[in-house]
Amino acid sequence: MKLADARVTIVGLGLMGGSLAAALKTERACRHIRGVARTENTIHQALARGWIDTGTLDLASGLQETSIVILATPVRAIIELVSRLGPLLPAGCLLMDLGSTKTAILEAMQRLPAGVRPLGGHPVCGKEVSGIEAADARLFRGAAFVLCPLPRTGQEALGLAQELVEAVGARPMVMDCERHDRLLAAVSHLPYLLSLGLMASAEEQAQADPLLWDLAASGFRDTSRLAASDVRMMLDILLTNREAVSVMLGGLRDKLGKLQRALDCQDEQTLRQMMEAAQRRRREMFR
Amino acid sequence: MKLADARVTIVGLGLMGGSLAAALKTERACRHIRGVARTENTIHQALARGWIDTGTLDLASGLQETSIVILATPVRAIIELVSRLGPLLPAGCLLMDLGSTKTAILEAMQRLPAGVRPLGGHPVCGKEVSGIEAADARLFRGAAFVLCPLPRTGQEALGLAQELVEAVGARPMVMDCERHDRLLAAVSHLPYLLSLGLMASAEEQAQADPLLWDLAASGFRDTSRLAASDVRMMLDILLTNREAVSVMLGGLRDKLGKLQRALDCQDEQTLRQMMEAAQRRRREMFR
Repeated sequence: MKLADARVTIVGLGLMGGSLAAALKTERACRHIRGVARTENTIHQALARGWIDTGTLDLASGLQETSIVILATPVRAIIELVSRLGPLLPAGCLLMDLGSTKTAILEAMQRLPAGVRPLGGHPVCGKEVSGIEAADARLFRGAAFVLCPLPRTGQEALGLAQELVEAVGARPMVMDCERHDRLLAAVSHLPYLLSLGLMASAEEQAQADPLLWDLAASGFRDTSRLAASDVRMMLDILLTNREAVSVMLGGLRDKLGKLQRALDCQDEQTLRQMMEAAQRRRREMFR
Repeated sequence: MKLADARVTIVGLGLMGGSLAAALKTERACRHIRGVARTENTIHQALARGWIDTGTLDLASGLQETSIVILATPVRAIIELVSRLGPLLPAGCLLMDLGSTKTAILEAMQRLPAGVRPLGGHPVCGKEVSGIEAADARLFRGAAFVLCPLPRTGQEALGLAQELVEAVGARPMVMDCERHDRLLAAVSHLPYLLSLGLMASAEEQAQADPLLWDLAASGFRDTSRLAASDVRMMLDILLTNREAVSVMLGGLRDKLGKLQRALDCQDEQTLRQMMEAAQRRRREMFR
């Protein structure tokens, strides 16, 4: 099957699902897009923007006669959906999710009926705001889009998923789910926890001196940005990637301890080395 | 004296000094601006952009017949300058610095000759890039600009400094230097150290799997931005505010420990409480 002939059902029309619908529609990438949401209001908004052809609140009817199903809800809702939608899926249908952790989701996908072709997906992009109001057809452009196939996925289904990823302007990166979760713990889940720790520290200090918030400038704004992320989404991510996140957090705490000891001892050389290494790498990464 | 009649000498024409010259000139705020720099190239650039009226590499001649001297170098260079420029300053002259920590600088200012009117200043704004190339006349607009007077400063000198701050579009905030340093440790120096720790953790993980850098998206970019800051500037800041920074870093390490324990025990309630509190405050701060 080609993407151009596919009927796509997107379950969840928030930031990710709404943006995917918008991108597929803008690119005229597939034959039909159906949206499944929890509220009439979301369906109305998606229809009014022309991002879906039809919409429904009913999962069972939303999955009828479809060739690609995309689950775009928080991670634990994806796991729950995967555990019960097997009997509702048409034979041969490609089932992909957009969740930010992959191992727990792929475990659930292993138990799907034999006729379904499941695959883990994760577009590595986002915003700290959520909901269809924040959706954007250009969200995926230039972003990495990880695909985690299972042995049962098959080349044809993987090829179709790659075609979809490229259609929305993202770069497909195929890897196993454990590797994905380990790497994302370092580049995404850890930065979130740092933002959280920073906000908690500032809040504590502001109890003693509320003038603090008047002095928070662009450096604080950027470092704390992720703390504004959707709580339910982030909680699902952290709890389904606990071990990798805990290892990264432990490593980071060691590094902050080293920095604190260097400060306390006025060990200028250690400080300078860590600062220069970080500066060099950061400037290489984002020019 | 009014600012409009003042002859201003700015020592150091990097991001801060260059931007201040540009802002004062754009606003036609004073009678004459003289720049003192370490290289001919910087003087040429400042003259070519029309940000200074005259420029020199020679500190002694740069300080002659001036009414306001502004020190815009890294903090330890400011301390060194303050210790030796006393005899070079005209009687009655206002001496202000733009350093990011204040206590150590004010200690040095206490020892200046009696005729000089010294004052600590800190425009709370910046970029992670440095040098006159990054300077911008609009840098100070809307920013907090802390002023730390000494008992010897006097109302007239403080008033002149406030006039200067308002002329470049910033908000003067008068406070004592210990309070400034404690608050800045929380909202500026701590975020820098977090960025540094994050880069060190990611670097370590990338040694095992270099694919990591391909997966670093906007969340990582923002949280790590401060790690690209000028090393000399940041090292001076950390070393002249060691105690306050160490206290904040210790508090943050405790919070990250609490987060790690909550993760390890699947303590969803603790995680959710910390996440919701941080999200609420962050969204209030930056709408």
